[in-house]
Amino acid sequence: MVLTVKDMTFKAGQELSISGKVKSGCEKFSINIGHDADNIALHFNPRFCYNGDTNIIVCNSNQGGWGEEVREHGFPFQHDEAFKVTINFNNEQFYIKLPNGTMMSFPNRHGDDAFNHFDVRGDVKVEGIKMK
Amino acid sequence: MVLTVKDMTFKAGQELSISGKVKSGCEKFSINIGHDADNIALHFNPRFCYNGDTNIIVCNSNQGGWGEEVREHGFPFQHDEAFKVTINFNNEQFYIKLPNGTMMSFPNRHGDDAFNHFDVRGDVKVEGIKMK
Repeated sequence: MVLTVKDMTFKAGQELSISGKVKSGCEKFSINIGHDADNIALHFNPRFCYNGDTNIIVCNSNQGGWGEEVREHGFPFQHDEAFKVTINFNNEQFYIKLPNGTMMSFPNRHGDDAFNHFDVRGDVKVEGIKMK
Repeated sequence: MVLTVKDMTFKAGQELSISGKVKSGCEKFSINIGHDADNIALHFNPRFCYNGDTNIIVCNSNQGGWGEEVREHGFPFQHDEAFKVTINFNNEQFYIKLPNGTMMSFPNRHGDDAFNHFDVRGDVKVEGIKMK
């Protein structure tokens, strides 16, 4: 785990930005938003080289088991480069702004309008978190 | 608790900035840096009106019990106003830059050069965390 933030409520309509740097040799990392480490409404998982996947973003959710993956083939992440990902959501969708400014979405399968757990895992260094 | 950050290593020489807004009616809030919620090397505690104290910053540490307080009478915090506090440290001192640009220090009684727990408590809204 790179970092875990608890007790900070992320509400529908707010915007969460996470900035950092991808370490050299990073195979994958993930940003996870939900109610706890095992109950994840958004698992945002850029894969540089992992499990047969190369340069792809895989999103999923986990409520007692992983759901159906959503795959995004744009991959604006690079080793040793800074990144910034901005996330907002309503009770139907998460909207994720990627480092190159393009957007992707993922269904809010929980349907909840507030989450108070998020964490970052993998070979990245987180340098900033902003919520507004 | 407003937020808890775990697993994000804060090392001597790095700079941690926390920005947010003081809620109206806030009696006190605190920023705590240490090894866990009960083992705190820096307890930075602005008191608007608490326990007989008015508009004073109280710092302390807790290792199985509170230590000796350090009190700073400059108080550049206001209800309903934004604030930014920047902290860095070495194994002797914490250096804290207050919202008006003035500095205060507090001894690093643990003497450690890395901490991986910090939290914010009280009636404030945290809007940003930066580490560099």
